[in-house]
Amino acid sequence: MNVLIVYAHPEPQSLNGSLRDFSVQRLEAAGHEVQVSDLYAMQWKATLDANDSTAQPGDRFNPSLDSQQAFAQGLQSKDIELEQEKLLWADTVILQFPLWWFSMPAILKGWVERVYAYGFAYGVGEHSDVRWGDRYGEGTLAGKRAMLIVTTGGWESHYAQRGINGPIDDILFPIQHGILHYPGFEVLPPFVLYRTGRVDEARFAEACNALGQRLDELEQTSPIPFRRQNAGEYEIPALTLKPDIAPGCKGFSAHIE
Amino acid sequence: MNVLIVYAHPEPQSLNGSLRDFSVQRLEAAGHEVQVSDLYAMQWKATLDANDSTAQPGDRFNPSLDSQQAFAQGLQSKDIELEQEKLLWADTVILQFPLWWFSMPAILKGWVERVYAYGFAYGVGEHSDVRWGDRYGEGTLAGKRAMLIVTTGGWESHYAQRGINGPIDDILFPIQHGILHYPGFEVLPPFVLYRTGRVDEARFAEACNALGQRLDELEQTSPIPFRRQNAGEYEIPALTLKPDIAPGCKGFSAHIE
Repeated sequence: MNVLIVYAHPEPQSLNGSLRDFSVQRLEAAGHEVQVSDLYAMQWKATLDANDSTAQPGDRFNPSLDSQQAFAQGLQSKDIELEQEKLLWADTVILQFPLWWFSMPAILKGWVERVYAYGFAYGVGEHSDVRWGDRYGEGTLAGKRAMLIVTTGGWESHYAQRGINGPIDDILFPIQHGILHYPGFEVLPPFVLYRTGRVDEARFAEACNALGQRLDELEQTSPIPFRRQNAGEYEIPALTLKPDIAPGCKGFSAHIE
Repeated sequence: MNVLIVYAHPEPQSLNGSLRDFSVQRLEAAGHEVQVSDLYAMQWKATLDANDSTAQPGDRFNPSLDSQQAFAQGLQSKDIELEQEKLLWADTVILQFPLWWFSMPAILKGWVERVYAYGFAYGVGEHSDVRWGDRYGEGTLAGKRAMLIVTTGGWESHYAQRGINGPIDDILFPIQHGILHYPGFEVLPPFVLYRTGRVDEARFAEACNALGQRLDELEQTSPIPFRRQNAGEYEIPALTLKPDIAPGCKGFSAHIE
């Protein structure tokens, strides 16, 4: 299987760097092909702007429309094109990052914004009052799997159902559902390592053990059962759950079967 | 009052640009002092890295510890220092941005990561088994107010309680609670403008009317009643809600009184 790891940590000699190296070795030892997009090492351009297209600049930069035009006409920056090729090559995509301020680092957010072009990751398929595009379960990346590897300084209890930071599944929902399920990925449960300030050799070995098992089972693990937009459960174009689907449920969890 | 608008859109001649201009005029006409950090115009460096400190680079870059050292010893990059000064100057801080992939644009996320230094926005106060820092309602920015101005391409129903994207309040929770309440801000309800692809003159006038009213009432509006970490409602150090606080409630909303 082809695995792409998109990795966002500034220091190779860090816990994240060690986990990344471990993952690459484990996957390669199992016979997989692995590519790593090491965003800091690549000096990835984090900011989406008019320079993302090689077209002559117009009067006004429009993030969506300019992206659409650049994608359709082959005018995207080379760095964007290369990442899209890696996504198409991959069977499984892993995003690995430290949780900074309850989301991904800016450099990875900028990877999403720039690589997820209009026509590639959104604006795909028919958009009308009866069909709202190929998204949330359908799209360019359908049939592929994705998984997050996340580290946090906070404790597991801080991210529990009644923990002060909010439940980790809810914090990750905009990424897992809004960024990964959206263009079609099947999303596996995340691998989260908490309390990174206190990782000694024993805890690191334990973490590698648990992570290794998750990597060994990438092809068998059941994905999070996010609902599919176009499977009859949502009103279109309001895109609210139909009254008979999970009646009384609301919030993020209503979108998981 | 002193108002800082941190603004993240690449095109001045956009809906966001027009709303920004409107806000500045409205606030100045009411006698407030206004500063705008226009991140794209400033070519804000989005990526947190070892160059954020003028100290001699060590063997390994440690995002928190290097930030702590740079802040404590006056070795931060000038651009970071200037933004911290603006935050200290402001009575109210407005973050204005288009919702991209269910969060803030990378350039604004990078502003948070770099400006929110260890010792400034986190790692403030006593950290022990009985006290977990001055945060979530206390901290350097306590006594100040903050508000989001957000635009989305999607419809309001897509962000409703049973809307496919998830409720807007939950999508914004990691920002409003995790980034604004955390260092002490009182957070006002957000101003959200939906369906930006369909803003004609009439809807723009309506939006300005509604936004203008919110700006006129900045000092009177009741903040979102996020719970305070150190007010006796959380177990320390587990930082879970005590059993008698909102029993049975879980998820983001449990942290709102």
